[in-house]
Amino acid sequence: MELGDEYFMKQALKEANKAFDEDEVPIGAVVVADGQIIGRGYNQSAHLTDATAHAEILALTAAFQYMGSQILEDAQLYVTVEPCAMCAGAMKWSRIGKLVYGTDEPKSGYSLYSPNLLHKNTEIVKGVLQDESRFLMQEYFRSKR
Amino acid sequence: MELGDEYFMKQALKEANKAFDEDEVPIGAVVVADGQIIGRGYNQSAHLTDATAHAEILALTAAFQYMGSQILEDAQLYVTVEPCAMCAGAMKWSRIGKLVYGTDEPKSGYSLYSPNLLHKNTEIVKGVLQDESRFLMQEYFRSKR
Repeated sequence: MELGDEYFMKQALKEANKAFDEDEVPIGAVVVADGQIIGRGYNQSAHLTDATAHAEILALTAAFQYMGSQILEDAQLYVTVEPCAMCAGAMKWSRIGKLVYGTDEPKSGYSLYSPNLLHKNTEIVKGVLQDESRFLMQEYFRSKR
Repeated sequence: MELGDEYFMKQALKEANKAFDEDEVPIGAVVVADGQIIGRGYNQSAHLTDATAHAEILALTAAFQYMGSQILEDAQLYVTVEPCAMCAGAMKWSRIGKLVYGTDEPKSGYSLYSPNLLHKNTEIVKGVLQDESRFLMQEYFRSKR
């Protein structure tokens, strides 16, 4: 049996929950190759005092190390929320084969700027476990009001 | 005497030369606050096997640590070559006060996509030590042919 998009998005949601528990904006990501997770990350911007420590960047960096390559053409990245322009730019450099995300990010998602922020060969799938991904974000921001 | 843009761009060029000496795409950056360098970086993508290890990202991360803040509204970033979309996105999160760069990057510069990749309050100055910045890039790519 091949593990599907929902399975890996659940893994990304697990990462997002770690961020939630640490009072970070709850976004999580995993990078997958050959049906195996080769990088994980959750948003740690606040704790690391580092605006670049987004889930996707941390998961990509782990995957680069695992693969010994900056190019991840045959890998897939799963992230609970639409990536920002910075993370889309990082994915473009990696030529990631497929991006799967849960919920749109209408304030800072990369698609606000240009679809070309991603590599032309990157397949895009959105809306996988969208409700769960969005719920976590809403809960976080509700708690901040 | 206030240290000017050329002074700090020379410091960014010093960083770029380190990249050149290590056979990396020769781009260097410094972040400055109150006339003092608070972060330095040069492109280390190849040696770190990390497509996110651009000069600007490394310099910003150092500056975040120095300032204990992800927000660098009163700081300036100097980089020898026009930033890519990923680095512009990182600068947007940091709300950097001013971006100064040397030479345009017509293949992957952020301005290919959208000027809005930078924060609306970020002042932009380009062309400072443009010839020196471009020369280093040309020498690097000539050596690769």
